[in-house]
Amino acid sequence: MIEGKNAVLEALKANRTIDKIFVADGNTDRVLGEIVRTAKERRIVVTFVDRRDLDKKSETHAHQGVIAMATETEYVEIADILKIAEEHSEPPLIIVCDEISDPHNLGAILRTAECAGAHGVIIPKRRGAGLSSAIVEKSSAGAASYVPVARVANLNAAIKELKAANVWVCGADAGSDKTMWDIDFTVPVALVIGSEGTGLGRLVSENCDFIASIPMKGQISSLNASNAAAALMYEVLRQRTNGRKTLRG
Amino acid sequence: MIEGKNAVLEALKANRTIDKIFVADGNTDRVLGEIVRTAKERRIVVTFVDRRDLDKKSETHAHQGVIAMATETEYVEIADILKIAEEHSEPPLIIVCDEISDPHNLGAILRTAECAGAHGVIIPKRRGAGLSSAIVEKSSAGAASYVPVARVANLNAAIKELKAANVWVCGADAGSDKTMWDIDFTVPVALVIGSEGTGLGRLVSENCDFIASIPMKGQISSLNASNAAAALMYEVLRQRTNGRKTLRG
Repeated sequence: MIEGKNAVLEALKANRTIDKIFVADGNTDRVLGEIVRTAKERRIVVTFVDRRDLDKKSETHAHQGVIAMATETEYVEIADILKIAEEHSEPPLIIVCDEISDPHNLGAILRTAECAGAHGVIIPKRRGAGLSSAIVEKSSAGAASYVPVARVANLNAAIKELKAANVWVCGADAGSDKTMWDIDFTVPVALVIGSEGTGLGRLVSENCDFIASIPMKGQISSLNASNAAAALMYEVLRQRTNGRKTLRG
Repeated sequence: MIEGKNAVLEALKANRTIDKIFVADGNTDRVLGEIVRTAKERRIVVTFVDRRDLDKKSETHAHQGVIAMATETEYVEIADILKIAEEHSEPPLIIVCDEISDPHNLGAILRTAECAGAHGVIIPKRRGAGLSSAIVEKSSAGAASYVPVARVANLNAAIKELKAANVWVCGADAGSDKTMWDIDFTVPVALVIGSEGTGLGRLVSENCDFIASIPMKGQISSLNASNAAAALMYEVLRQRTNGRKTLRG
């Protein structure tokens, strides 16, 4: 189930396989109109229903008048993500989520990954939110339809696979004396984002090539996981856009 | 009501006025232990209750075994925020929230503002989440106890007040051809973050001194509001830490 105007519209644009779309009766919203038009062009069944029926179906409790029944996004392999970077002739930028359990956070990370031009996201099979969550879909504002996501049985094996493919693996941890501004992100890089409660797992942290801290100026010692991911991803994009010369010193 | 281990612990550390703390029975968690010890030192009543009683009281549905009954955080004036920056001999960094309605987003923005060393946050009285929300408190991970927040009747009047105090007001909007990397953030600056649905209001946008875009590389055209705020705040902090020389060109 995909809920919300942006998420459904982006799923349509991304040519996701959609069985059926439920739209609230008597709605004159511009985006809902665009959804109905696009769905009809693609010969997808649109059913107008009472808003209360949508309320009952909704998992996110914020459907904004539209719910689409879609086949689940297919997960990819790590090799696929590396290939996408190669096809774009770009050094890989990959986000690794170490047990992000809040579906809002995973959705926001997918959204920022898509906006910042990351080539893919890796999540663990156990523990942590997955793409089947309607809240992840909605929080991603449609990005879940675009960003390739690999779901792996073992995060440490995935990190080894990335290293073998010459990707530098950088964990985010407040404890490091190297900040994200001190690290060269113009090379192929995977950013490992720790879980909301406990940060990076010990073994995961040990397997990283280096650990970068996000500078902290206040009393609170850590950022929300998706906010940390955003600060890191945009530092990578800045360095790659403006060149390594712009770093400290 | 303040819920969750981090939020309650930070409220204690920040010397917030707390009437009473409810802790789940039979809990051996380290942070909960620290909360109970600190509360006793400060002669705050700690009541041990059945976890199900906490479930009933909880607004966030994620109380993690502790709920504190605190007096509401007091709002400050814009002048207070400017004074704090002056006392630190720092150019002001102020976050202005243009109708952020999702309490998770406002909480995350407060948290990142605290971490990035912002001097205060300005929110509108009407429309948009406020500090009385338990979800805002919890999502802020305690930052709501530290970051000065001004709540204003009129956001445009607030922007004028900032300008009169020689603060440059920078709106965030994807439509601008100036990116956040092109703008000098070493000067006194207020960052205006638009609402989740519609971005910056028209009048607010017109009142900004300049508009900065966050570069977008993908199909989705905007970030989650708190992720956008994080990318912007850390660009400001980077420039102020590393010097303006590190900008493009």
